[in-house]
Amino acid sequence: MPSPFILVNVKTFREGMGNRAHMIANAAQLVAHESGATIGIAPSYIDLHPICHHFAIPVYAQHVDGYEPGAHTGHITADAIKLAGAAGSMVNHSERRLTLADIEASVRALQAQKLTAVVCSNNEATSAAAAALAPEYVAIEPPELIGSGVSVSKANPEIIRKSVAAVHAVNAKVRVLTGAGIQSGDCVRIAVDLGTDGVLLASSVVKAKEPADVLRDLVSKL
Amino acid sequence: MPSPFILVNVKTFREGMGNRAHMIANAAQLVAHESGATIGIAPSYIDLHPICHHFAIPVYAQHVDGYEPGAHTGHITADAIKLAGAAGSMVNHSERRLTLADIEASVRALQAQKLTAVVCSNNEATSAAAAALAPEYVAIEPPELIGSGVSVSKANPEIIRKSVAAVHAVNAKVRVLTGAGIQSGDCVRIAVDLGTDGVLLASSVVKAKEPADVLRDLVSKL
Amino acid sequence: MPSPFILVNVKTFREGMGNRAHMIANAAQLVAHESGATIGIAPSYIDLHPICHHFAIPVYAQHVDGYEPGAHTGHITADAIKLAGAAGSMVNHSERRLTLADIEASVRALQAQKLTAVVCSNNEATSAAAAALAPEYVAIEPPELIGSGVSVSKANPEIIRKSVAAVHAVNAKVRVLTGAGIQSGDCVRIAVDLGTDGVLLASSVVKAKEPADVLRDLVSKL
Amino acid sequence: MPSPFILVNVKTFREGMGNRAHMIANAAQLVAHESGATIGIAPSYIDLHPICHHFAIPVYAQHVDGYEPGAHTGHITADAIKLAGAAGSMVNHSERRLTLADIEASVRALQAQKLTAVVCSNNEATSAAAAALAPEYVAIEPPELIGSGVSVSKANPEIIRKSVAAVHAVNAKVRVLTGAGIQSGDCVRIAVDLGTDGVLLASSVVKAKEPADVLRDLVSKL
Repeated sequence: MPSPFILVNVKTFREGMGNRAHMIANAAQLVAHESGATIGIAPSYIDLHPICHHFAIPVYAQHVDGYEPGAHTGHITADAIKLAGAAGSMVNHSERRLTLADIEASVRALQAQKLTAVVCSNNEATSAAAAALAPEYVAIEPPELIGSGVSVSKANPEIIRKSVAAVHAVNAKVRVLTGAGIQSGDCVRIAVDLGTDGVLLASSVVKAKEPADVLRDLVSKL
Repeated sequence: MPSPFILVNVKTFREGMGNRAHMIANAAQLVAHESGATIGIAPSYIDLHPICHHFAIPVYAQHVDGYEPGAHTGHITADAIKLAGAAGSMVNHSERRLTLADIEASVRALQAQKLTAVVCSNNEATSAAAAALAPEYVAIEPPELIGSGVSVSKANPEIIRKSVAAVHAVNAKVRVLTGAGIQSGDCVRIAVDLGTDGVLLASSVVKAKEPADVLRDLVSKL
Repeated sequence: MPSPFILVNVKTFREGMGNRAHMIANAAQLVAHESGATIGIAPSYIDLHPICHHFAIPVYAQHVDGYEPGAHTGHITADAIKLAGAAGSMVNHSERRLTLADIEASVRALQAQKLTAVVCSNNEATSAAAAALAPEYVAIEPPELIGSGVSVSKANPEIIRKSVAAVHAVNAKVRVLTGAGIQSGDCVRIAVDLGTDGVLLASSVVKAKEPADVLRDLVSKL
Repeated sequence: MPSPFILVNVKTFREGMGNRAHMIANAAQLVAHESGATIGIAPSYIDLHPICHHFAIPVYAQHVDGYEPGAHTGHITADAIKLAGAAGSMVNHSERRLTLADIEASVRALQAQKLTAVVCSNNEATSAAAAALAPEYVAIEPPELIGSGVSVSKANPEIIRKSVAAVHAVNAKVRVLTGAGIQSGDCVRIAVDLGTDGVLLASSVVKAKEPADVLRDLVSKL
C-alpha cells in the first residue's frame, strides 16, 4: 500500500505567508523524509513558485480556473501553475465553490498539463459526482467538521466510509482524502482505516508554533 | 417503452408569458392528447400556479434553490413550487449554473417534496457527475448546439450517445434528455434513437405562431 | 411630509406563502387604510400576480434580473413583474447579492418599465454607491442588525444617520429605508427620526399569528 | 498636471507569464524612464513578487478579495499583495465581476494596507457608484470597446466624458482611467483630452513582439 498523502492547505492565513510558508514547507520536507509519508503543501499563489523552487515536496495551488491562457483578468490557469512548478491543484474547496461545468473544466485543464486534481466535495452524493469527473483525488469535507476542531472519528465516520464506497462505485481509480476533522495522528489513522488515502488539513499545522512537531504527530500512527 | 418526454422551456421569452403561456400549455395538452406523447412546460415562476391549475400536463419550474423555507429573499424553494402544483424543476440550466453542492441540494430538496429533478449538463463527464446525484433526468445541452439552430444529428450525435452511456454506467435508472439542437420531428426521432428518453427545447415552440403545429411536427416521427 | 413607507418582505418563509400571503396582504391593506401609512408587500414570485390582482397596495418583487425578455432560463425580468402588476422590486438584498453592473442593469430595467427600485446596501459607502445609480429607494441593512432581533436604536443608529447623509450627498432625490433592526412602533419612529423614509422588515410581520396587530403597532408612533 | 498613468494588464495571456512578464516590466521601466510617464504593470499573482522585487515601477494585482487573512482558500488578500510588494490592485474588472458589497470590502482592505484601488466600471452610472466608494482610480471599460480593437475616439467618446463628469460630481478626488479602446498614442492623447488621468490596456502591449516599441508609441503624443 502506498503511503498516505497529507496535504497542508495554507489558506490565506497570515501564519502561512512568506517566511512562514517556507518554514512550513521545510517542516513538511523534513517530516516526509523522516517518516516516509508524502506531505504536500498548498501555499498562496504568490508563494507557489518559490516554494516549488526550493523544496522537493508536492506543491499544490488552492484553486485553478478551467481557462486556456487568454483574456481572463484575475484568474489563475493550469498553464500558469504548471509554469510555476506545481504538482496539481485543489478544485472546488468549500471556501471556493465552483459550478459543475467549471469543476469539470478545471479538472480537464489540470490533466491536459499532467497536473493532479484534488476535487473537494461535501457529502456522499457530491463525492460520487466528483468521482465521475475522474480526478486523481476527491477530498470529502463534511460541513459539520470544517473548522470545528472536532475529530472525524467522534463526529460522523459513516459519512467518510459511505463516500469512499460511493466514489469507488463510480470510479475505482479515484483516491479519496478525508478533508476535515483532522487534528492528530489518531485522526489520520482513523481516516486511513475508513478507507481514505490521506488527509487534507489546514490550521492545526499552519498555525502551529512548530509545524514539524504537529506533522510528526500526524504521521505517528501510520 | 414509455413515450418520450418533451419538455418546453419557456425561458423569459416575451412570447411565453401570460396569455401566451396559456396558449402554449393548451397546445401541449392538445398534442399530448392527440399523440399519446408526454409534453410538459416550464413557464416563468409567475405563471407556474395558474398553468398548474388550468392544465393536466406536467409543469416544471425553470430553476429551484435547495433551501428549506426561511430567510432566502429572492429565491425559489421546492416547497414553494410544490405548493404551486409543479411536477418538478429543471436544475443547473446552462443559463442558470449552480455549484455542485447547490445542484445536489436542489435535487435533494425536490425529491423530499416528491418532485422530479431534471439536471442539465454540458458534456459526457458532467452528465455522469449529474447522474451520480440520482435525479430522475439528466438533460445534456452540448454548448455548440445551444440556441444554434443546428440539429443534434448534424452536429455531434456522438456526444449524446456517449453521455447516455456515461450516465447509465453511473446509474442505470437515470433517464436522459437531449437538451439542445432540437428543431423538428426528425431531431426528436434521432434523439430517441441515440438512446435518450426525450428532449428539452425552447424557442422553436415558444416563438412559433402556432405552437400546436410545431409540437405536432415534433411528435410526428415517434 | 409624505407618510413613511413600510415594506414587508415575505422572503421564502412558509408563513408567507399561498393563503398566508393573502392574509398578510389583507392585513397590510387594512392597516394602511386605518392609519394612512403606505404599506407594501414583497411576496414570492409565485404569489406576485394574485396579490397584485386582489389588493390595492404596492406589491414588490424580491429580486429582478436586469435582462430584456429572451433566453434567460430561471431568471425574472422587469418585463415579467410589470405584466404581473408589480409596483417595483427589491434589488441586491443581503440574501441575493448582485454585481455592481447587474444592480445597475436591474435598476435601469425597472425604470424602463416605470417600476420602483429599492436597492439594498450594507453600510455608508455602499449606500452612497447605490444612490449614484439613482434608484427611488436605498434600503440600508447593517449586517449586525439583520435577523438579530436587536432594535436599530439600541445597536448602531449612527450608521443609519451617516448613510442617509451619504445618500443625499450623492443624490438628494433618493429616499432611504431602514432595512434591518425593526421590531416595533418605537423602531419605526426612530427610523423616521434618523432621517429615513420608511422601513423594510420581514419576520416580525410574516411570522406573526396576527400580522394586522403587528402592523398596527409598527405605525402607532407615527 | 501629473503625468498620465498607463497600466498594463497582463491578464492570463501566455505572452505575459514568466520571462515575458519580466520583459514587459523591463520595457515599462525603460519607457517610463525615457518619457517621464508613469507606467505600471498588473502581472499574474505568481509573478507579483518577483516583478515587485526586480523593477522600480508600480505593480498591481489584477484582483483582490476584501478578506482579512484567515480561512479563505483560493482567495487573494490585500495583506498578501502588500507583502509581495504591490502598489495596489484592480477591483471588479469586467472579467472578474464582484458584488457591490465585495467591491467596497476590497477597496477598504486595500486602503487599510495603504494600497491603491483601481475599480473598474462599465458605464456612467456604475462609474459614479464606484466613485462613491472613494477608490484612488475608477477605470471605465465601455462594453462595446472591450477587446474590440476599436479606438475609444471612433466609438463612443461621450461615454468617457460623461463618466468623468459623473465620477467627479460624486467625488472630485477620484481619478479616472480610460479602460478600453486604447491602441496607440493617439488613443492615449484622446483619453487624456477627454479628461481621464490615464489608460488601462492589455493585449496591444502584452502580445507585442517588442512591448517597448508599443509603449513608446503610447506615450508619444503626451
